[in-house]
Amino acid sequence: MRLADLPTPALVLDRAALIRNLRMMAEAVSRHGVALRPHLKTAKSVDVATLAAPGFGPITVSTLAEAQLFAEAGFRDQIYAVGIVPAKLDAVAAMNAKGADVKVITDDLDAAGAIAAHPGCIRALIEVDVGEGRGGVTPEDDALTAIADRLGTRLAGVLAHAGHSYGAGTVEEIRAVAASERAGIVGAAERLRAAGHEIGIVSMGSSPTALHAASLAGVTEVRAGVYMFGDLMQVELHTQPMEDVAVSVLASVIGRKPARNRFLIDAGALALSKDRGTQTMAKDYGFGLVVDLAGRPVFGDAIVIRAYQEHGVVECDRPLPFDALPVGARVRVLPNHSCLTAAAYERYHVVDGASDEVVAVWPRVNHW
Amino acid sequence: MRLADLPTPALVLDRAALIRNLRMMAEAVSRHGVALRPHLKTAKSVDVATLAAPGFGPITVSTLAEAQLFAEAGFRDQIYAVGIVPAKLDAVAAMNAKGADVKVITDDLDAAGAIAAHPGCIRALIEVDVGEGRGGVTPEDDALTAIADRLGTRLAGVLAHAGHSYGAGTVEEIRAVAASERAGIVGAAERLRAAGHEIGIVSMGSSPTALHAASLAGVTEVRAGVYMFGDLMQVELHTQPMEDVAVSVLASVIGRKPARNRFLIDAGALALSKDRGTQTMAKDYGFGLVVDLAGRPVFGDAIVIRAYQEHGVVECDRPLPFDALPVGARVRVLPNHSCLTAAAYERYHVVDGASDEVVAVWPRVNHW
Repeated sequence: MRLADLPTPALVLDRAALIRNLRMMAEAVSRHGVALRPHLKTAKSVDVATLAAPGFGPITVSTLAEAQLFAEAGFRDQIYAVGIVPAKLDAVAAMNAKGADVKVITDDLDAAGAIAAHPGCIRALIEVDVGEGRGGVTPEDDALTAIADRLGTRLAGVLAHAGHSYGAGTVEEIRAVAASERAGIVGAAERLRAAGHEIGIVSMGSSPTALHAASLAGVTEVRAGVYMFGDLMQVELHTQPMEDVAVSVLASVIGRKPARNRFLIDAGALALSKDRGTQTMAKDYGFGLVVDLAGRPVFGDAIVIRAYQEHGVVECDRPLPFDALPVGARVRVLPNHSCLTAAAYERYHVVDGASDEVVAVWPRVNHW
Repeated sequence: MRLADLPTPALVLDRAALIRNLRMMAEAVSRHGVALRPHLKTAKSVDVATLAAPGFGPITVSTLAEAQLFAEAGFRDQIYAVGIVPAKLDAVAAMNAKGADVKVITDDLDAAGAIAAHPGCIRALIEVDVGEGRGGVTPEDDALTAIADRLGTRLAGVLAHAGHSYGAGTVEEIRAVAASERAGIVGAAERLRAAGHEIGIVSMGSSPTALHAASLAGVTEVRAGVYMFGDLMQVELHTQPMEDVAVSVLASVIGRKPARNRFLIDAGALALSKDRGTQTMAKDYGFGLVVDLAGRPVFGDAIVIRAYQEHGVVECDRPLPFDALPVGARVRVLPNHSCLTAAAYERYHVVDGASDEVVAVWPRVNHW
């Protein structure tokens, strides 16, 4: 099977780029002597997990569907890194009763009480806000120790996510975010230890801070996910070069407007997602950058400037080679945000580098 | 089964609102004496199609997956309303060989040649650009007659889509778009008839223009899709009241920040989509409007202001009732754009009006 034979749109994964990305992050984290706990919210694939977390873990997940898939595949040590609600505890306990060790996270006193009272074996990490301002209690908040007290022996550690690293414009800014992330989560751990709690896991991470942190002293593990595939946002954040973006959307030309130097493709808002993550970055890639069937950026800045449900409108900063782009011609689109783009597909069509031979088809677990 | 018992996030469909919306559009179109060809790109559901296109059609679809699902369910008369590529003709011909009449659309001379040369029975409509500037040839373009000549006996008619009606701010502006849409598509049909072609289908439509057109003289059918479910964009376009938005996302509170008058829900970018369709409209609803479990807007302007992959951040213009919003509490989110939000789910949980009893579960066909 070749890419040129696939129905479009389809999701393409370059295994060679994936492996480069995995190696880069493994090396970046291992020099600190801490564990890498890959986040599989982007990949949602056992095949990718086997490469990213060799030896069956540890891993991070974002849905119960992922937790169940990976638990059944043998990945015991998991953190389900979205604030838990009591109604989801039974499902976690059921996985753990079958041998998994899925840990949950909370920043809420009542939820901590529900975890502590649950008859199943469920341990929890306290979510700590190190500056992102999304979930979590701050390291100084009285709620930190109150939640720890409520969890009692169910307390497994503390966890932070520096999502605000995505607002950084330079590597130096990412380093500064990583330093405050580390200081915050280690401070929370030390505060709890001083109060008599045992803190086994001190977890931080985001792809940018995992890659660029200068020190991880006091941290036991780093979580990162999108680095596996990368995307245009990661390129702009200087966490990877363009040629290491491992996922792309295979699309067909469905219309041509040479007078406007524009063509249409059959990859629109559903096939690419409406993520506009590069909108506020140094370069705005619209809904994605169009490259050729081999993944090469041969069209200059050919960008999907509009995304209707099933139509993408491509424009370019230089004259497009319309002779090479008849209706039916195949192109690929590099996404702004691979987590959201990949979620539109049930499977990856795997290639190795610039070859258009599909060497494998890997299923994904979508939904919740 | 009750909404309060469902795992979250989940997609809720209010059948009572759906039926009101279907009736409204059927009445609006029937007063013109033309056929309604519902577009099932939003619903992607045989159960909805059976209500929206009683008697098995005619219908419009946006993917081959929809075409196949509906053909197998007995909907013969279909238009696949995305510019066709030659590689997809075999799949269309295979459906038609089994009794379907799936018509394709094109605005391309070479694609028209491939349709005419295909051994299967495939008829096509010429896509006409009536001002949207996406796909289609203009009514005056020489390509219109050239494509018709190339299609020969495979020519079934002409088709226009007034997507630019979504840029209208008032009903009067929508009426003006509808008038130019009608003039354009009827003009194209007349030009082709004058050149000796038989034009059976003169198809136009978008939910706003289908609803508000003052005249449809010369048009044989109207296509519309999103009206079935509606969404916040349709409310702002004055095509429906807020209480007729038929789809919403059931979510759980997963974190609370009373000091910031903010809470988090487990419906983020994947559960809601990143469509920001109301961003440039009179009122910006962020990533959606939060209502209570019964669908009532009891929280004022409680809006999902940020959407991470699995987290939605809700803020409000008035103090939120945190006593009624513990972690685990259920809310619903009305979407900006129901087509994109619904696409994240495999099924609808159907309720009737404000009752929280799930009266049916209807599957969807996603992907391509």
